[in-house]
Amino acid sequence: MIRQNIKVAVDAVVFGYKEKTLQVLLIKRNIDPFKDSWALPGGLVLESESLEEAVERELKEETNATVDYLEQLYSFGKPGRDPRNRVVSVTYFGLVKPEHHTIKADTDASDVAWFDINELPELAFDHATILDMAQKRLQNKLTYEPIGFDLLADKFLFSDLEKLYMTILDKQIDRRNFRKKILSFGILEELAEKVSEGRGRPANLFKFNQKQYFKLKEEGFLFDIK
Amino acid sequence: MIRQNIKVAVDAVVFGYKEKTLQVLLIKRNIDPFKDSWALPGGLVLESESLEEAVERELKEETNATVDYLEQLYSFGKPGRDPRNRVVSVTYFGLVKPEHHTIKADTDASDVAWFDINELPELAFDHATILDMAQKRLQNKLTYEPIGFDLLADKFLFSDLEKLYMTILDKQIDRRNFRKKILSFGILEELAEKVSEGRGRPANLFKFNQKQYFKLKEEGFLFDIK
Repeated sequence: MIRQNIKVAVDAVVFGYKEKTLQVLLIKRNIDPFKDSWALPGGLVLESESLEEAVERELKEETNATVDYLEQLYSFGKPGRDPRNRVVSVTYFGLVKPEHHTIKADTDASDVAWFDINELPELAFDHATILDMAQKRLQNKLTYEPIGFDLLADKFLFSDLEKLYMTILDKQIDRRNFRKKILSFGILEELAEKVSEGRGRPANLFKFNQKQYFKLKEEGFLFDIK
Repeated sequence: MIRQNIKVAVDAVVFGYKEKTLQVLLIKRNIDPFKDSWALPGGLVLESESLEEAVERELKEETNATVDYLEQLYSFGKPGRDPRNRVVSVTYFGLVKPEHHTIKADTDASDVAWFDINELPELAFDHATILDMAQKRLQNKLTYEPIGFDLLADKFLFSDLEKLYMTILDKQIDRRNFRKKILSFGILEELAEKVSEGRGRPANLFKFNQKQYFKLKEEGFLFDIK
């Protein structure tokens, strides 16, 4: 084999949803280059682990987070993207439910925090580009896969789902059509439990039935809310 | 940085469309492992080149092919996928117009050929898995991006487009609806030129207007033939 000195890293764009804003999980670097800058969690892949295992390990080590949804995003490999060495980063995009928002910086980062996607600090390396691609993927995927439920609590109000779509897609939606469409899919269970929201009368909680979704998907059902 | 001995390669799944079949470009390996097996074109990335440059160089060196469309597919990195060394392969998926089907094995491969996707030989490494993912991506993408035109000649009969969709999606389509829908998008130019196909009367040739498509796309138009 030819001599090659390229390192392989993984980086993760992890989204959460909190107080009607889309949030992203960042760490503060405690080593050079970009020491003290905010960055995506990630690091070099160990020789014995798969790429997915590497992402999960890095997330654990740097943020103590566990993700509810994880998929590969894209590989970034332009020469010069890391000032030390040629590094190809295989990036992932993850979603975290509110139940799992608790994070804590570990030895590999000096700090870790959720940032509102609209109030981001300057990011290390090409991480702003990676984050931008992940946000587009999330917006796009939300319209053809029911991944929004991985950002909501297990039980949620229908209005929470509406707000999530409006926030992430950054546009108004026709609420009546949206409700009719989503409910027609038969992948939500309406629970007997009710909660009050603001001054309105109590509304029923809903639960996403993932098993039913996978069953329907196998039969050819397409989730589509474009 | 930690010691890491992982190599980075690129591999390409290049599709062509010929005689109403979907074809894929394969090379016969002239070195071990898997010597004399058919495989996807690809190889290790040079330190000075980008991942895209690496794919284009490998395609040129091994097959003499130039692609009309190229996008990143997925990165495969399971330990053990290459018996020599840990190798992470960043894979690409490409499309070639009939005008560019001419190929020729170069020094890096003992043979190169187009294979009908339904009559594939056994493939080296995990290349069958990669090819499978690329085929699914192609099928899926065909319904929401006008990439099928990168598999057709610049001028084509409408029936060629229909057959391409039926072949790649492996299902019948409602021809009348399909025609109505595609023509309504305003991204095809009907030319004055006519050709006869089989025993039918002469039919007009069409041309895809990519410039118009990009303009419409920017304005929010969604190509959608689900």
